[in-house]
Order: sequence, then structure tokens, then C-alpha cells
Amino acid sequence: MKVDGKDIRTIWLDTDERTVKIIDQRKLPHEFVIADLKTVDDTIEAIQDMYVRGAPLIGATGAYGMYLAALNAKHDPIDQAYLIKEGDRLKSARPTAVNLAWGVDKVLAAILNVSDPARIISLARETAAAITEQEVENCRQIGLHGLSLIEQLSIGKGGKTVNVLTHCNAGWLACIEHGTATAPIYAAFDHDIDIHVWVDETRPLNQGTRLTAWELGKHGVKHTIITDNAGGYLMQHGMVDMVIVGTDRTAVSGDVANKIGTYLKALAAWDNQVPFYVALPSSTFDWNIRDGIKDIPIEQRDPDEVKYVYGLDQDRPTHVLICPQTSPAANFAFDVTPAKYVTGFITERGICKATEADIRSLFPDKGR
Amino acid sequence: MKVDGKDIRTIWLDTDERTVKIIDQRKLPHEFVIADLKTVDDTIEAIQDMYVRGAPLIGATGAYGMYLAALNAKHDPIDQAYLIKEGDRLKSARPTAVNLAWGVDKVLAAILNVSDPARIISLARETAAAITEQEVENCRQIGLHGLSLIEQLSIGKGGKTVNVLTHCNAGWLACIEHGTATAPIYAAFDHDIDIHVWVDETRPLNQGTRLTAWELGKHGVKHTIITDNAGGYLMQHGMVDMVIVGTDRTAVSGDVANKIGTYLKALAAWDNQVPFYVALPSSTFDWNIRDGIKDIPIEQRDPDEVKYVYGLDQDRPTHVLICPQTSPAANFAFDVTPAKYVTGFITERGICKATEADIRSLFPDKGR
Repeated sequence: MKVDGKDIRTIWLDTDERTVKIIDQRKLPHEFVIADLKTVDDTIEAIQDMYVRGAPLIGATGAYGMYLAALNAKHDPIDQAYLIKEGDRLKSARPTAVNLAWGVDKVLAAILNVSDPARIISLARETAAAITEQEVENCRQIGLHGLSLIEQLSIGKGGKTVNVLTHCNAGWLACIEHGTATAPIYAAFDHDIDIHVWVDETRPLNQGTRLTAWELGKHGVKHTIITDNAGGYLMQHGMVDMVIVGTDRTAVSGDVANKIGTYLKALAAWDNQVPFYVALPSSTFDWNIRDGIKDIPIEQRDPDEVKYVYGLDQDRPTHVLICPQTSPAANFAFDVTPAKYVTGFITERGICKATEADIRSLFPDKGR
Repeated sequence: MKVDGKDIRTIWLDTDERTVKIIDQRKLPHEFVIADLKTVDDTIEAIQDMYVRGAPLIGATGAYGMYLAALNAKHDPIDQAYLIKEGDRLKSARPTAVNLAWGVDKVLAAILNVSDPARIISLARETAAAITEQEVENCRQIGLHGLSLIEQLSIGKGGKTVNVLTHCNAGWLACIEHGTATAPIYAAFDHDIDIHVWVDETRPLNQGTRLTAWELGKHGVKHTIITDNAGGYLMQHGMVDMVIVGTDRTAVSGDVANKIGTYLKALAAWDNQVPFYVALPSSTFDWNIRDGIKDIPIEQRDPDEVKYVYGLDQDRPTHVLICPQTSPAANFAFDVTPAKYVTGFITERGICKATEADIRSLFPDKGR
């Protein structure tokens, strides 16, 4: 995507083939910083501390982390147990993100039981690159399928502005290009459909105000920032035509784990008959889980993410304390939206309903 | 209520009987400042710039403003036209706050057509004090009625912690003592019921983290700050036994206007069979409105309240920009929760269902 006129992705391998480059998303929108990953430890830190976030991007980062593990292996021949251990360390960096394990395991499967170290390294690199390209293509396809829904809304409104609400950042910053939830939005924008996006702030880490508003603004898409509290009001007053969000893990039953607060927006959409769509590549389906609320593990993060807010004080980026220092805080990172509140899934193969039968009929070759 | 072991109210007349003392709530929780009101101009500034907020407190402040008008009158005998003019100036400080006009008019009615200046002053003082005491008594009664609900929950849980979620600040800081939504909580605390409060941050102005967390902490009530996004998750996981919120205006049909985001919590409570109560003095019922969503006007405030967050940078209070400077924002201040999602109202006369019939049967003497 474009940033200040230049094409850029969220992750790429440097020409030295020893350094993985990423955008340090913690510092957006106030600073635009490229960070270097040279080791598995760097990669774990980048995932855990959220230099990178978003299911597809975490998957690609995990895959490149396995490449770095292979590259930095001390044993010759490379110790299989070491690779598995490094894979386990990478996978435990963030528990809710199913793509992380998927990306790591895909590289591991390609290199385990290969004995030649040079071959292991090249296989790891090629697999990580292939995963990355596949994610880009998946997002492009999600955009084209979602575009048809927005086109229908636009026609239904006689060409008047289509208002889409989104929560968190499931934009290109969460992926490699296009995004998941934003892919249909960018596709509509590129097709000259009059579109406007309500951007949920997304406390505590403000991925909406910091990232979604930034990337939409850079691309020229009309948008308005709102607090996480505002969506219900907008829907009650007919100001939202459609909700599109991403997901960190979706049970095969259709239950959707996504950034905390998504569930509240789904309830409001349901109460006001606003279509609520989840955009995801099929890699985000968890084919083994049926009860999302009971069985998807929800990460609890540092309470200081709630107690402090990142912003610009005059021109200086800083974190400010927004509550009494002595008050405790809790920081649940995700919630699960029951399938019954989801209108449909927008996937790389098309759109389906939030039922196991519909998901399986679109992906008969997966999850068996 | 208790602050660092000392009893305090949000407003009181100093022993000199010439100075009205208030807590400057703009500076909480980072600074605890008592401000002096000696003139009508001081009072108008305090109301307009939100040193004081909350319907009952604004009413009492307006009443004491009229006392200051009488006290500072230059004419002997006091000019009736001057008193009316000062009343009008006070009432226009926040024209939408119905309690403000009510408090001012109540003092005016007591002193107009009285000729003795000393008598005017003493009547104004006594009326302002009586209004204040009546608000305290209403809140105390709300607390006792709400206490019965919390006691039942506590018994049902075999004495285990009762978890109450609240949104915004309908605490003693919004009133004079006890609060509305917090009155049952303080009553339960004083009755040694094991109680814990989930405090919604309440963006954009963070009345939850700034005010509710502060007053609960100062009184010694267990609480945990959460983002506005978190309540749905907590309710899905059985971590909320009851929701209690305040209201700015409640239609006689039971539709509840309250701080933006209240509606989303009501939906989550409904979806998870968590009781959702609204605590209010009967003066907050609007006896003329039936369709809350259509007919209660919703204030739109400065977008900068969304784009900037107030907090401590090191030890310095400041406002930080949390989004791209160029991104627009929208700031709807309230939403309306339909009566069907409200379990009941906790009023100074007892508890009733959110139906016109139930409300009218509890208040047959009002709104006719």
C-alpha cells in the first residue's frame, strides 16, 4: 500500500536475507519506524510487544521467525529438537492468534526431516515467502468478494454514501497488503463507490485511532473517528449500513474471537438489523473448536495498557496515566461473538453464513 | 463521603456564610482542589466549565448561586429585577440541565416578593440548604432500596463477592453524597457485604477512570478499571452479577438516556441474563416523552474531546493527541437504552419495572 507515495508492506526480508524488516506499529501514527528482526528473540518480542499485530501478519512474522531460527541454528546438522523448541517458543508468544501457530508449523513441516542445513534454510525462507504471498492474495480475494456486498448497498442507496463501521485494525497493517476487514473498503474506494468508514477508537491500545485512521487517511478514504461507546447510537439512528471486522480466531461453528468490544458491536448491529460481517482468510478458522466462548483462550494483558494512553503531548510521544495510580485495572484482549450474531463471513473463496455446514461447504478440503 | 478518612461533600457553605466551597472535578484524580465561589460569576464559571457536573449537584450549585446573588446584592431593599436577572444568568450556564433551572427557580420563588434584605438572604440560604439536603436524602433512599437487590445477590452467592458493573460517574461526585448508581454500592459496603465494582473507563471524558475509580478508592470500595469494550466479555463469563447506571433523562415509557455506551452494556446484560438497573431520583423522569430514541435530544460535543485524552505525563497533567491530527472525529454524548433492556429503576420511593404503568403507580402524584 502507499505511504507518502511509496509502496510498502508490513513485513519483508531485507536484501541481505538475514534481516526481517517490519513497521513498528506501536509508534504509529505519531512516528513511522522500521524495525529489524535478526533472531527468534527479536521476533518473539515484536509479536508479544505488538510491534506487529493482526492475525495474517502474525502468521507471516511467525513463519519468518522460523526462518531466523533455521538461519541462526548453531548445530550442524541442524538439531530437529532445537527447531521444534524454537517453534514452540514462537507459538507461545500470543495464545489467541491461531495464525501464529499455523505459520510456524507450516515452515516446520517443510524443514523437519531435511538434513542439509543450506536446504533447511532455503526451504524455510521460501515457505515464509510463500505464506506471505498467499496472505496477500487471500486479502485481495476477500476484497473482491466483499466489494459485491458494498456495491449492492450503494445501489440500494441510489449511490449515496455507504457507511461502514469497523472495530480495531483489520487493515493492511494487520496483514501484508489490503487488509481483511478493510479489503472490501479499499476495493470499493478503488471502484469509485462513495464510501465512509466509522473508525472505533478500540481501547486500550487504540488500534482504530492509531492505525485504521492512519492507513485510511494515507489512502484517501473518508473516515470519522468515534469512541468505542458510539456505535450503538449510530446504528439506532440509521448511520451505519454495514459492520465489517476481522478476527483472530473463528471456531468452525462460526463463533468469532476478535478484539475486545467486537461482541458489543455485533449485539447493536443485531438489535438494529445492520449486517455484521467478519472478513477472514480460511487460515483463521479453527477447525477443532465449536464452542468459541468456552474453548477459545482469551489473553489477559498488562493492566498498564488500560491505565496509560499513548499520544502526543505537544510534539512529544508519551504515555499518560488516566486514572488514580492506585486503582487496579483488568485487560482482557478479546471477546467472542456468538455465531448467531454474525451475518456472514467474507473469505478468499467467497461469502458464507456463520454455520459449520456453510463454512465446510466452502472449504471441503480444509480442517480434516 | 470519605476522602482520606475525612467526611466531605461535593458542595457546602463555608462557616463565614459568604463562600460556597466545591471540589474542582476537572482536576481529579490527579489533583484534589477545593474551589471558592463568592459571586454569581464564579458560580456560572464553575457550572459552565464543569468544575461541577451531574444533575443533582448542578441543581444544588444553582441554588447556592442564587444565595450568592442575594448576598451580594447592592440595592437596599434588594431589587427584585436584579434577582430575576441573576437567576436567568445562572440558568443559562448550561441550558440543557433541567435541574439547574429547577434549583435556581426554587430559591427565587422563596425570596421574590420578600422585602427585608436580611430575610431574603436567610431564606435563600435555607432554601439552598434544603434543596441540598433533599438531594442527599433522595440518594440515601435510592441506596437503601438498591441495597435489598445486592443483599439478595449476596445471599444467592453464599456471601461470595457481588460484582457490579457501572458506566460513567453517577457517584457522589455527581450528587452531594451517596450518588445514584453508587448509592446501593456504598450502602452494601457499609453493611459489610463483599462487593466489587467494574468501572467502565467511559470515553471520551473518562468519568469512570477519573471520577468513579477515585471516589470508590477513597471510600475503600474494591474496584477494577476496565475499558468500555470489556463489559460484554465479563458478562459472558459470569463475572458481572448486576449492572447499575445513572441517567440524564428517562422517558416515562422507560427509555433511558445516559452517557454514550450505556445501550451497549444493556444489550450485553440482556444477552447474558444479567440484571440491568437504572438508579435515579424521580426528578429525572421526563413525564412528557414516550419514544426516547426519537424524542430525547442528544448533544453533540467538541470532536477534540475524542481526539485528545487527559492524563498525567510524568507528574504533569496534560491532554495528548491520540490519532492523526487530520482525521475527523464525532462526539455524540449520550445514547438511549430502550425500556425492554432495562430490568428496573431504583428510585427514592422504591424499585419499579421499566414500564409507564409501573413508573406511574410508584409516582401517582408526579408528571400530571
